[in-house]
Amino acid sequence: MESKSYMVQMNGNGMKIHKKRWNIRASEMSKNTLNPIRAIVDGMKLSPNPDKAMIALSIGDPTVFGNLPTDEKVLQAMKDAMDSHKYNGYAPSVGYQKSREAVANFYCSPEAPLEADDVILTSGCSQAIELAISVLCNPGNNILVPCPGFSLYKTLAVSLGIEIKHYNLLPEKSWEIDLQNLESLIDEKTACLVVNNPSNPCGSVYSKEHLQDILAVASRHCIPILADEIYGDMVFPEHTFYSMAPLTNDVPILSCGGLAKRWLVPGWRMGWILIHDRNQAFGQEIREGLVKLSQRILGACTIVQGALEAILNSTPQEFYQDTIGFLKSNSEICFSALSSIPGLNPVRPSGAMYLMVGIEMENFPEFENDVDFTEHLVTEQSVFCLPATAYPNGECGNPLYPNYFRIVVTVPEDMMVEACSRIREFCQLHYRPCNQESNDLDQ
Amino acid sequence: MESKSYMVQMNGNGMKIHKKRWNIRASEMSKNTLNPIRAIVDGMKLSPNPDKAMIALSIGDPTVFGNLPTDEKVLQAMKDAMDSHKYNGYAPSVGYQKSREAVANFYCSPEAPLEADDVILTSGCSQAIELAISVLCNPGNNILVPCPGFSLYKTLAVSLGIEIKHYNLLPEKSWEIDLQNLESLIDEKTACLVVNNPSNPCGSVYSKEHLQDILAVASRHCIPILADEIYGDMVFPEHTFYSMAPLTNDVPILSCGGLAKRWLVPGWRMGWILIHDRNQAFGQEIREGLVKLSQRILGACTIVQGALEAILNSTPQEFYQDTIGFLKSNSEICFSALSSIPGLNPVRPSGAMYLMVGIEMENFPEFENDVDFTEHLVTEQSVFCLPATAYPNGECGNPLYPNYFRIVVTVPEDMMVEACSRIREFCQLHYRPCNQESNDLDQ
Repeated sequence: MESKSYMVQMNGNGMKIHKKRWNIRASEMSKNTLNPIRAIVDGMKLSPNPDKAMIALSIGDPTVFGNLPTDEKVLQAMKDAMDSHKYNGYAPSVGYQKSREAVANFYCSPEAPLEADDVILTSGCSQAIELAISVLCNPGNNILVPCPGFSLYKTLAVSLGIEIKHYNLLPEKSWEIDLQNLESLIDEKTACLVVNNPSNPCGSVYSKEHLQDILAVASRHCIPILADEIYGDMVFPEHTFYSMAPLTNDVPILSCGGLAKRWLVPGWRMGWILIHDRNQAFGQEIREGLVKLSQRILGACTIVQGALEAILNSTPQEFYQDTIGFLKSNSEICFSALSSIPGLNPVRPSGAMYLMVGIEMENFPEFENDVDFTEHLVTEQSVFCLPATAYPNGECGNPLYPNYFRIVVTVPEDMMVEACSRIREFCQLHYRPCNQESNDLDQ
Repeated sequence: MESKSYMVQMNGNGMKIHKKRWNIRASEMSKNTLNPIRAIVDGMKLSPNPDKAMIALSIGDPTVFGNLPTDEKVLQAMKDAMDSHKYNGYAPSVGYQKSREAVANFYCSPEAPLEADDVILTSGCSQAIELAISVLCNPGNNILVPCPGFSLYKTLAVSLGIEIKHYNLLPEKSWEIDLQNLESLIDEKTACLVVNNPSNPCGSVYSKEHLQDILAVASRHCIPILADEIYGDMVFPEHTFYSMAPLTNDVPILSCGGLAKRWLVPGWRMGWILIHDRNQAFGQEIREGLVKLSQRILGACTIVQGALEAILNSTPQEFYQDTIGFLKSNSEICFSALSSIPGLNPVRPSGAMYLMVGIEMENFPEFENDVDFTEHLVTEQSVFCLPATAYPNGECGNPLYPNYFRIVVTVPEDMMVEACSRIREFCQLHYRPCNQESNDLDQ
């Protein structure tokens, strides 16, 4: 007996009878849902050195090593929400009014006022980004995304038949946007400009002036902005975070954020969209579209929604400061250590949880590219950093940074110190001086 | 100064200069995301009688009146998950392995074995249904959905450009599927058959034989099944719930479920897909497609995921029995009360949380249809039931039940009794005998 899903038989006249057969194909959308990081990492040969414990500097999850717990007040708020027995039922698809109000009050400013109706709660910042892209773009449109940048913009857009255009960031200018390049990409099909500040993977924080320059481009071409501000306020003390919305009167902005990074609970899936539209360019249509889209699968867990007001209002300032203090200290340790290694060009970060390191490939002739380099770093030193190729790089063909890798600075300090010393050993072993002119970009 | 988004000016030569103007339109997808229930309810004139307290028999949320709390073990599992500090970071996009394993073990049967890899955790059963439809269907395909039935199938499908075909349920056969009608709808574009058992809004529970008949249709035409089994096991003592998967060897099934109804925590957004594919008709392709789609926005809150194993394994049997006992008792109260009201034809439910009531419109000449009837029931008696028109009815043009309304039987008993007595008063006032032949379908 054939166990396959179709049969071919002969009847009395020798004719074939085809039984209808199973022929289930995965949808185009699922096939077009690509995760560049997975594609790169799954294709890498990662065989750590058995004599050295693995140190993963690749995981963008601040909770994995246990050294950055969330605040007790945050956990208490969750328990209180649970004990109230008030938050087990369905919330409105856009979130509880009280929770939306709490977010609006938290992020309200005189220049960019917010009310509860301007807030949509989502299942993590990922869903916020998904709703924002889904409401602004039709298949055939394009969106402008940073290169290097967070891969989810591409994953979501391409799965919806929306084209991606990568604009260049300039490492020598602390990853500011190449505005000329950005403007050159805009065409009549451009539906949205994605700005990620502070940046994953760059750790950069834009100045007010640079943000105003970006807004001027958007204003000139009447392109709305999706501001991915999930790392908002996570900047080192000598820097200032400027949210985009207060800096413009005319450009409409969907600002996406959430609890994940600043409150160190990425698994809780509590995100939001802040609708800034003082010029009425979105109007009712985009607001209604967002509400409709929110009804497809509903949003965040009601326990977290119930706890949200207390989380925003009761988390002590010291908690935020301690997190920032740790990230800054760790990134300084990493930056200083790597700056003194011949062949490496770290770019000093100003916030978020990341640091990008340029590789002078000409001085490491044994390795082809960033993927090859980071692969061997695992084999020899059991240190894993994400090659920038995973942050769509090759594809956007940006000649400015063909070979970088990203370091996550949330690991415990001793691990960071040890990792840097292993990277030094690795580089010293493989470095071949060729051209002595300095390629250091950030010194 | 014009505050609008464009300017028309005259230059020296009298020529017009058009500044580019803001012209942001909501996407087709957002415009195509329709919620029939909202559309109907928002269009209704709902002005309760100020002398009578409002009783809403319309809300499909068992938690709203506080009479059906979840079990203490469920809350304790959540607190334990929180206190462990282990579940704040990112989970894999398909869920923690341990939590998937717990679901697999809970729903495993000798006829339809399940392993952790057969389970995908989602943000509520809604996302489970969304992923299932998204992986099986391309724009231009059609899916077969019950009429009357849960409106989300249509909302999700239409937003993705997938066509809906409604198959008829037969009230006189306790809402069994009209199999001939079902089979007649299948064409080469049919990508999926949605079966909702037990049913919202009907409260029906299918026999093993009827499910086998449905499976035979699917098998004959090689159509995979999306089994919406969110009310699985929520059946009255004299009935048995049969999951579809153990009843077939060849038809591949995506069974969607979650904690929402049986554990009475719909707001927590903990759902799952169980992949049943013993015939390898889905193969790797559908599995990989589901994994890819799960990466778009990630799934359920990690605290709930962390608590899942304990929730499934520690909730006492008495909790389930108590819930069912209450639902049965309340639905019996409602059914008996309404059965004796001239002009109404309630259909006796066997499970879930609902009961459908037919209106003999010819005996209520003052009212045009179910919407008009239920509107006046609010105006006069402050009792709100959802008209079946909201469960796409008019659109599928099914002549069998043009005028039904749904009653949710989760309200406290005294409220149910009071509501029934008000419905009686309303009907007695408006009933006009015309044709004395009995239209009772279920007696």
